[in-house]
This record gives sequence, C-alpha cells and structure tokens, in this order.
Amino acid sequence: MQKKKIILTGDRPTGPLHLGHYVGSLKNRVELQESCQQYVMIADVQALTDNAEQPEKVRQNVLQVALDYLAVGLDPAKSTLFIQSLVPALSELTLYYLNLVTWNRLKHNPTVKQEIVQKGYGESVPAGFMVYPVSQAADITAFKADLVPVGEDQLPMIEQTNEIVRHFNRIYKTETLVECTAMIPKCARLPGTDGTAKMSKSLGNCIYLSDGADVVAKKVKGMYTDPTHLRVEDPGKVEGNPVFSYLDAFDPDIAALEEMKAHYQRGGLGDSIVKKRLLEVLQAFLEPVRAKREALAQDPQAVMEILRQGTKAANAAAEKTLSDVRKAMHLDYF
Amino acid sequence: MQKKKIILTGDRPTGPLHLGHYVGSLKNRVELQESCQQYVMIADVQALTDNAEQPEKVRQNVLQVALDYLAVGLDPAKSTLFIQSLVPALSELTLYYLNLVTWNRLKHNPTVKQEIVQKGYGESVPAGFMVYPVSQAADITAFKADLVPVGEDQLPMIEQTNEIVRHFNRIYKTETLVECTAMIPKCARLPGTDGTAKMSKSLGNCIYLSDGADVVAKKVKGMYTDPTHLRVEDPGKVEGNPVFSYLDAFDPDIAALEEMKAHYQRGGLGDSIVKKRLLEVLQAFLEPVRAKREALAQDPQAVMEILRQGTKAANAAAEKTLSDVRKAMHLDYF
Repeated sequence: MQKKKIILTGDRPTGPLHLGHYVGSLKNRVELQESCQQYVMIADVQALTDNAEQPEKVRQNVLQVALDYLAVGLDPAKSTLFIQSLVPALSELTLYYLNLVTWNRLKHNPTVKQEIVQKGYGESVPAGFMVYPVSQAADITAFKADLVPVGEDQLPMIEQTNEIVRHFNRIYKTETLVECTAMIPKCARLPGTDGTAKMSKSLGNCIYLSDGADVVAKKVKGMYTDPTHLRVEDPGKVEGNPVFSYLDAFDPDIAALEEMKAHYQRGGLGDSIVKKRLLEVLQAFLEPVRAKREALAQDPQAVMEILRQGTKAANAAAEKTLSDVRKAMHLDYF
Repeated sequence: MQKKKIILTGDRPTGPLHLGHYVGSLKNRVELQESCQQYVMIADVQALTDNAEQPEKVRQNVLQVALDYLAVGLDPAKSTLFIQSLVPALSELTLYYLNLVTWNRLKHNPTVKQEIVQKGYGESVPAGFMVYPVSQAADITAFKADLVPVGEDQLPMIEQTNEIVRHFNRIYKTETLVECTAMIPKCARLPGTDGTAKMSKSLGNCIYLSDGADVVAKKVKGMYTDPTHLRVEDPGKVEGNPVFSYLDAFDPDIAALEEMKAHYQRGGLGDSIVKKRLLEVLQAFLEPVRAKREALAQDPQAVMEILRQGTKAANAAAEKTLSDVRKAMHLDYF
C-alpha cells in the first residue's frame, strides 16, 4: 500500500474566510482530506509578521477561521487543524534554517518584494516579514509535506523551501528533510463583487462564508456586471463579468448556465435575472454552511478543543522532525 | 531584603576558553555568582549562525567550555549553566521580536556591520547572522536579566535589546519585559601573546585554560615584548608589552611588579627574567585550574548532567517569561 501524500496548507487568521477562499482552496481541501494526510494550519505567527500591533485581531480570527473550516466540511477526523504558534518546533526550525539562507536571497524573493510594495513598507519592513519565507519552509518541512497548494504568485516560496531542504541535507549529510511540490489550483481565482481581480477584505468586495442571507442578497444585487450592457436587449459580455464567474464556480446546472450565457451574449437577458439565479445558487451553497457555522459557534470551547487536539497531533509530527534535525546537526545532547 | 540582580552571560562554543576570556569575563562571573542570580549560557545556536557547516565543532566545544567554566570556579550551585538550543522558548521569543524590528535597523547595527566586514561575508551574510542581535534580545529578556556583561563593542546589542523591550511593552500594554544595563568590565582586555589587541584562536596567539605546563612555558618564552629592547642594559617599554599586561592581570605581588616595571623601564632587566616571573605566576594560577579540569574531564557524563540540570532551571525561567509574553500578545489560547 502506498503511503498517503502529506499536504500542508492553511490561512493567516486576519479575517473571516470568503467565497474566494472557498473556490481557491477550501473546496480542494475538503476533497483532498479523503485521500491525503492533510495538515491545515491557522498561521497566527505568520499573521503577526505584519500585524504585530493588532494581536487581538489575530486572536479573534483564529476561532472565526476554525468555524469557517468546519462549516465547509473540513473534518477533524480526516484533517489535522492546528494553531501555528502552539507548535514550538516551528520556531526552532526557522532559526536553524535562517543560517542556511543569505540575507541577499531573502531580499530578492519576488513574492516578498511585491508584498513590500503593496503594503507600502518602504524602508520600515519588519524583519519578521522579510524572513517569513524561511518560517514557511519550517512549516512545510516540519510535516514532511509532499504537496503544498499555492497560487502561482507563491511559487518562489516553494523554491525557497526546496533550496533550504537541499542545502540542509547536503551539509548535514542526511535525508531528513523532504522536498515538496507546489499544487497550483485548477480553478480560476474568484474576482471581487466589484469586478476587480480578487476578493480582498480591504477592498470591501467579498462575500463571506459567514454572511447572513440578507447581506448576501444585498451584495449580489450590488455586483458589478458588464458596464456596456445598458438595456436588456443589448448583447452582454460574460468574460470579466463576475456574476458569471461566480456562476461558473457554484452553479451545479452547467447546461442551463451555458444557455444563460448564450442568451446574455446575444442580448435580451437582464442583469437582474442573472443575479437572481446567482443568488439562488449561492444561498443553496451557503445556507447549510451558515447553519453549521452558527451551530458550532454556540460552543466555541468545543471548537477550541478540536484545535487543541489537532495541535497535539501536529506537535507530535513536528517534534519528530525537529528531533531528526537536531540529530543531523549533532545537537542531540541528552 | 532586596531581590538579587539577575545576570545573563555566556560564550559561543567555538573553541576552548583562554586567559583573555578569564580576565575579560570568567573572573568577574566567579565573583558575581556570590551576590547575583547568574545565568551562564553556552550559546550553541548563536555559534551556528556563522558555523552552520561545522556543527560537530560546536557540539564538541559545548563540553570543553563547560569544563573551562567549572575549572575556573563557576559553581553550578550558584550559577545556572545551560545550553541555549535546549531552551525552545528562546526561539519563539526571537520570532516574535523579529516583528518589532525593521530590516533596516538590523542592517545598520554597528557591531554586526563590523563583524560582516571582518568575516568577509560580502553579500553572502547568512540571514541567521543578521538577526542574531534579536536572538540575543530573546536570551536577555527571557531571564529578565538586569545586568549583561559586555565589551564596549557590544553596546549596540544592549541598545537593540532595550528598544525591543520598550516597543513590546508599549504595543502590548504590559510591563512583562525588563530593560537591562550593560556591565562594562573594569579590566583592560588581555592582548595576544604576539602583542596584537586581543587573543583570538584564528591568530594562534592564545594561552588556553586547558594548555599543559610545557605548552604554557613555550608560549610565554615566545611572547612578543618591546622590540626596541635589544640589549639587557637598554631601557624597555612597559606599555604595549603583553608580558607586563599579563603580569598586571595575574601577578598578586603588586609591589614587586611595580619595582620590576621601573627596573625594566630604566634598563638592566632582561626579557627572560620578566618572562620567568610571568611563567611562575601563570603556572601558579593555571595549575589548580588544569588539575580540576583534568579531573572533571574523566567523567564527561557528570559534566553533561550539570548542564542538563542547569538547562532545566533555565527552561523553567524562560517558559515563565514566554507564557507572560504570549498572554500580553493574546496568544494564550488554552
């Protein structure tokens, strides 16, 4: 019997999760937990690298993210859900790996460079933020992950991790660490309700998994469509029209959707009809998620207990790797 | 009764300790352990920041440094001797503090800048080396040290630590972390046997605490003196003459030493006579140290057991601080 592939994935707890998270990652995770050994990390340490002054925000969102995970169907019996900061081996591995990466290499990480510009850090970028790719390498290698689901823009992180793995194994003459492979999601990224490239809390263009039915209705009603589709009889564009992107992602009736797209393109189909269909589809998807989420939220202690158990399992795996790492580094004193 | 002052001090285990270490720090530690609560750290993690490819060297020297400590009179009943890498709280604190320091600030640390030049790193400086001042801040604050013995050149490290303390306490609205004060040693630095500013393993100008009597005799005989003191009858210089610097540090008979200096300066006193006196003085100091060291070296397991006990005590103190830190950061989940 072949060994199950190990996956490491997770999210920074800086806000509740939205439909973009679902399409881009949560949906895959729910499928992958059936065939893989999946570690799902609530990355509070990583969230603090650019939220050091807002620890309460990070703290509150740990529970919110856990509720989102469970509500969409991540099953603690199949996936190991854990809190990053409660796995101390990750910090220790990070410090050892920092000796294997040059300052210069960190400075030229394309993902980090781009994020520094986006966040407007200028010269004031926190050192913790600069080194977070090394912290990610610790996360990935601690669990000996074979597969890491990432977006295209995160590929340099996987490269950095594998560089560290090869460097470590070479200088310490060991095979302790395992190289990983990036898993680029098949689904296109879900645009924001305003038609911009992606959902982003700061742009206020998200539909959250936790949004109430009336909030979702309001957000769908206000969605950007094709701005040239002025009258019902005008032909409309499907590409770049987020309403259709969402339908592509969520409408189970593919045939009817194709028909609707054709109708929209030739003219005679109003935005309100398309939005009505989208709302139906979204409510059908969100209703059970919301119900499950609300039920779970009644007993936050039980949710935290799930995280406590997952963290315990994560610690066992990470401690084993750390022990192998220390042995390879001749730091196994006692 | 006033609370005992807490001291954090230690050494990188990259080689055996020499007379320069004794005069510059070990001697003070032996005195300070009587009145202070002293943590003495064998800094293997820090040693790895610029010795990542030589872990075995670091590993072997942990025992050597411990033997030196015990041989000169550090008493495990009074001082807590411990191994840095076995206190995981230090790694975790380092990562949290990295978020409070800008990349730019690290780049401009004067001590680190100078060391980068000395080590000839150029653009290839390991990230772990760049961040070691933050790791030191973790070491110091973990034990809530009031006093940190450092050389003048290490003052920027203390400044960096106190900056982190103030930043942490301000943003997390706490008084958990404690600012520390640098303790600059009174004694002048001991020069190398070749007359250069300091003993350094790489220059081969050290007398080690573990050197045998014949090795010491040979090293003293070969010592640099005043190069203009060619004939016995010539006047000789005492300043910049390492033989007299060593006598200043080790000769208990101050009156006789002053007389000898005057004689040397007016001429008529040969180097061989002065070196003979130095050898007597050094052997008198080193003989019991060497005997104790050799006895301890017979049972390395017992020495490691002392470190194990010290590390246990160090962990208890550091875990307490980490717990307070996590509480202040709202990371006290369970």
